[in-house]
Amino acid sequence: MSDQTCCAPILASAANLADVGGPIYGLIRELYPICRSITGNGFRRTLQRLSQEIPLQIHEVPTGAQVFDWTVPNEWNIRDAYVKNSQGERIIDFCQHNLHVVNYSVPVRRQMSLAELRPHLHSLPDRPEWIPYRTSYYKQTWGFCLPHRQLEQLPEDQYEVCIDSTLEEGSLTYGEYCVKGQSQDEILISVHACHPSLCNDNLSGVSVATCLAAHLSQLRPRYSYRFLFIPGTIGSITWLSRNEEHVRLIKHGLVLTCIGDRGDFTYKKSRQGEAEVDRAVAHVLAHSGHPYKIGDFSPYGYDERQYCSPGFNLAVGCLMRSPHGQFPEYHTSADNLDFVNPDSLSESFQTILAILEVLETNRTYINLSPKCEPQLGKRGLYGSVGGASPREFEMAMLWVLNLSDGETTLLGIAERSKMDVRVLARAATALDQAGLLREMVR
Amino acid sequence: MSDQTCCAPILASAANLADVGGPIYGLIRELYPICRSITGNGFRRTLQRLSQEIPLQIHEVPTGAQVFDWTVPNEWNIRDAYVKNSQGERIIDFCQHNLHVVNYSVPVRRQMSLAELRPHLHSLPDRPEWIPYRTSYYKQTWGFCLPHRQLEQLPEDQYEVCIDSTLEEGSLTYGEYCVKGQSQDEILISVHACHPSLCNDNLSGVSVATCLAAHLSQLRPRYSYRFLFIPGTIGSITWLSRNEEHVRLIKHGLVLTCIGDRGDFTYKKSRQGEAEVDRAVAHVLAHSGHPYKIGDFSPYGYDERQYCSPGFNLAVGCLMRSPHGQFPEYHTSADNLDFVNPDSLSESFQTILAILEVLETNRTYINLSPKCEPQLGKRGLYGSVGGASPREFEMAMLWVLNLSDGETTLLGIAERSKMDVRVLARAATALDQAGLLREMVR
Amino acid sequence: MSDQTCCAPILASAANLADVGGPIYGLIRELYPICRSITGNGFRRTLQRLSQEIPLQIHEVPTGAQVFDWTVPNEWNIRDAYVKNSQGERIIDFCQHNLHVVNYSVPVRRQMSLAELRPHLHSLPDRPEWIPYRTSYYKQTWGFCLPHRQLEQLPEDQYEVCIDSTLEEGSLTYGEYCVKGQSQDEILISVHACHPSLCNDNLSGVSVATCLAAHLSQLRPRYSYRFLFIPGTIGSITWLSRNEEHVRLIKHGLVLTCIGDRGDFTYKKSRQGEAEVDRAVAHVLAHSGHPYKIGDFSPYGYDERQYCSPGFNLAVGCLMRSPHGQFPEYHTSADNLDFVNPDSLSESFQTILAILEVLETNRTYINLSPKCEPQLGKRGLYGSVGGASPREFEMAMLWVLNLSDGETTLLGIAERSKMDVRVLARAATALDQAGLLREMVR
Repeated sequence: MSDQTCCAPILASAANLADVGGPIYGLIRELYPICRSITGNGFRRTLQRLSQEIPLQIHEVPTGAQVFDWTVPNEWNIRDAYVKNSQGERIIDFCQHNLHVVNYSVPVRRQMSLAELRPHLHSLPDRPEWIPYRTSYYKQTWGFCLPHRQLEQLPEDQYEVCIDSTLEEGSLTYGEYCVKGQSQDEILISVHACHPSLCNDNLSGVSVATCLAAHLSQLRPRYSYRFLFIPGTIGSITWLSRNEEHVRLIKHGLVLTCIGDRGDFTYKKSRQGEAEVDRAVAHVLAHSGHPYKIGDFSPYGYDERQYCSPGFNLAVGCLMRSPHGQFPEYHTSADNLDFVNPDSLSESFQTILAILEVLETNRTYINLSPKCEPQLGKRGLYGSVGGASPREFEMAMLWVLNLSDGETTLLGIAERSKMDVRVLARAATALDQAGLLREMVR
Repeated sequence: MSDQTCCAPILASAANLADVGGPIYGLIRELYPICRSITGNGFRRTLQRLSQEIPLQIHEVPTGAQVFDWTVPNEWNIRDAYVKNSQGERIIDFCQHNLHVVNYSVPVRRQMSLAELRPHLHSLPDRPEWIPYRTSYYKQTWGFCLPHRQLEQLPEDQYEVCIDSTLEEGSLTYGEYCVKGQSQDEILISVHACHPSLCNDNLSGVSVATCLAAHLSQLRPRYSYRFLFIPGTIGSITWLSRNEEHVRLIKHGLVLTCIGDRGDFTYKKSRQGEAEVDRAVAHVLAHSGHPYKIGDFSPYGYDERQYCSPGFNLAVGCLMRSPHGQFPEYHTSADNLDFVNPDSLSESFQTILAILEVLETNRTYINLSPKCEPQLGKRGLYGSVGGASPREFEMAMLWVLNLSDGETTLLGIAERSKMDVRVLARAATALDQAGLLREMVR
Repeated sequence: MSDQTCCAPILASAANLADVGGPIYGLIRELYPICRSITGNGFRRTLQRLSQEIPLQIHEVPTGAQVFDWTVPNEWNIRDAYVKNSQGERIIDFCQHNLHVVNYSVPVRRQMSLAELRPHLHSLPDRPEWIPYRTSYYKQTWGFCLPHRQLEQLPEDQYEVCIDSTLEEGSLTYGEYCVKGQSQDEILISVHACHPSLCNDNLSGVSVATCLAAHLSQLRPRYSYRFLFIPGTIGSITWLSRNEEHVRLIKHGLVLTCIGDRGDFTYKKSRQGEAEVDRAVAHVLAHSGHPYKIGDFSPYGYDERQYCSPGFNLAVGCLMRSPHGQFPEYHTSADNLDFVNPDSLSESFQTILAILEVLETNRTYINLSPKCEPQLGKRGLYGSVGGASPREFEMAMLWVLNLSDGETTLLGIAERSKMDVRVLARAATALDQAGLLREMVR
């Protein structure tokens, strides 16, 4: 691994974030070869690499710990795995691609016929060149994944099957980092980091979140930002179980994944549906000038399932480009370093920053001069020759004045006026400085 | 009349209701020749025939009884009616078709010229072969209905006009049958049975409701079911007037009519508009795979006008196929035994049963494990190999768990998830048995 | 000016308002030549002319008076203005068209080269034949407006520039007239009258409002009607500032402008968005049979900006045909006597009357016979031969009975039933007379 951090150029260019795609992609490339799972050394190595970028707090939760309805499972580690033919050739080799082994496979070392081996082999008939990704976390079994074309050509033979894994007491590992803001109210950014060599579904989110954390750590934002790098499902359940009291501080949140491919943005709303984060994402995407899709919450997906379970019901949505299960490369060996690219990663980074900026600037004001319009002209805030249309900034001031009733947020004003909330925020600042508004503390 | 009940095959085939169309149609065929009106022996004969199928309670309300703003009218009976030409030939003959006489015509027996007769003749210029259906319940008059083609060809002549009717003190008759369920809360099924030889508008509802009552009487449903066989308008007013206290038990209701033709289903919503029955019908029709139409409530139509009057405002909608007044055969002799058919009647029966099933199974649960998802796998409720999409039943469990907050009904979950409520109900039962849910008693 | 009032024929033809277009147009023609501004004698002469039609109360508010955040400006008057070339020819002449001078220009009398003059000249490159309308109320400057074709051809020369204006202490003038109704609750009709020779944007509203006031003064309406003839912005601010307590009586209001051209009606909703006046206008336009457009409130436009400022938030919308800024003639010399026409003015007048009629008749009733339908037939209110569709008036009665719960207004019933509220109002009157309804006093 490099001893140069990927985020260094990002940190150095806080004013010009246009070139973040390269470093983000570079971090993905480094993390790609590691065989991660929901527990074990692959996950730990991943967090160690991220620790070079951000001061990650690493937690270990022992096997058997009760986390709500779940139990932290045995820790899985794997050193090697293969199927050899009778000539002693490795015809399926974990060292070639870690997707070849069903994740969480129990150890096995046996000779067997093709008929015995066959039920343990997984392939994709529709995509005969790709290796599928399969897991078996909660049922003890083993298996291999391979291209369907290869599976079809396997001859009758006596095969030597070896999975040199351990599934034993140990611990579940996750990483956490909090950027302190002016308020203790938090925005949660959660990414799962438990998938092995899969770039879009997993590493795109991991890498963008890491660089985002590095960037925000240089600022003094309004909100505090909590970053979680966790194994999917069991990780968010574990974190929520250990932080039940803390959860009330989380005001908004995003699960990030599949944000490195060339697809349009897809946002899955929180269970609340019209939460501030849902509206902020909708606003940014609507003003992006690009096609996008916003879908309703459903209880299937990533860790938003847990954050949005009815006992928590947090305002956490999920930002993706091509959504899980809807692109052919999903959960296959084709979700590789070619499937993600620096430009998409950069745009994802910028878009997330824009969403956070909306949340940061979404203040509520009260008009201190609410009876008729105040005379903006005498304060130098308005064009002086009448008869022509007002400019965008003047319209923004008029909207902010008209709708600042002490309850409507700038985002609410943006939704009604169809103006960009960032222009409204600038207008509000100017009006505030002119003594025409007062911010309401919520 | 047959001494074999039509519902016998239905009762015998509770498990396989596919063949209900034949018996339902058979009952229509038997009832078709009877000259019904809002009072009188035709209505009584009809109820007597239905009594062979279900243990109908028959009520008689005397002429002159005050029912809210209305008064029960004189009883009308008719034995014969005709117009004879000067050759003594019956050129219009009640015995040929009971629509030939304006329903509730006062007795008349006179010689008259065509000019005198003409204002008493009704026809349909647009449908010159059909006999229209006309009534005059509340204004004492008489008249004949005939095909327009025949009307146009009537020569000058001296005609003998005879209507051998009586309009005298008597009573208004209606039938009532209540299938007792586990709860005293009721679902009302109301059909008007006051139209003479008209199949779709009248007998389709009468016959389907009868067979439905016979079917439900074999079960022990959650709700009690009250079936009313009444004359239109005055019948529902009379029943409501005599059961004012009872009305609070009616939780849902359907008026059934025009459900025997080949048209798509049309549902007219209750005045409440979003009542549970309205949502249940919308759900069943949306999942039927067939085209359908749902219309808003209006105060014109059938007895839902009375059930939905502002002093009651019951959750009663009206289920039809081709809606009244919107098919040319409506209120003409063309609404005959050819216009309705066993297949449509069977489908109507099944659809109503499906609606009732939704109401029966629309329970409300609270998730007993609301913090994060419970681990379905360890309870044998979830597929164990990860990486593929969940099956429909697994999605149903996730939705039920996520939205069971003690207030949202299964139908509410179905509307949000766009899943079939019957699949959700099965999922809820499985989760309930696994101890993950508790039903809320409303 | 004529000593015959324009409204005389309107007053004489209260029963037949079809011919109001001519008189309304005639008044515009008389007012067109006057050089109005937000203060000064042009505005006063305009009000004096209107005083021949209606007993206008004329207010003078001295320069320097504080009106909320604003100060009443100096009074502007102009006698003459021109640019002469070195031959002594008036090449730009205020006497030819009062738009030639930038409204509120300070006095100037100087010789200057084209280069010095050029920054003070305004034209419309896209409309080279038209003179633009420009103002400079709150920044002391001067200027001339002229056709772009003429501007381009101006030779180098020594020009004599004269603006014989005064900008001195004086007063701001506005006119007010209240038609007393049965209630002290008011409907506000506000028009700006501060534009010089511009017909659609200004005089169409002034003239229609005047004739409307004359017409209403002959009646004894339910509401009182307050008519304001004011300079834009500063006028409504001044009035609101001087009538802060009175404002609570204003229940509904309309700003009228740009209602003389041939465009479709455009209604801009009040800030409240679903106020009774907004719904009344939507109802009338929807039932007009003509295309129209309804837009949301925005804080840019006419005096509704002030009436709808958050400190007042009055239910005041703005009725236009072609909306300001969206027709090329807007704020140019092409908004002249050819651009408006009697037919459009007449239709605008009728439409506003129809809106006011909806507000006047929008009562709330409670059904005194709410359990089932009352028997309309025995009261002579319903057709007696059954079997055919009810007529419109019968449907209106059924709707009024069904929805008159003491809270729903006739307009609310109209919206749900999609019937014309005026038919519903007639039905309600008939039912009221039959003792079936009681009006609720709000």
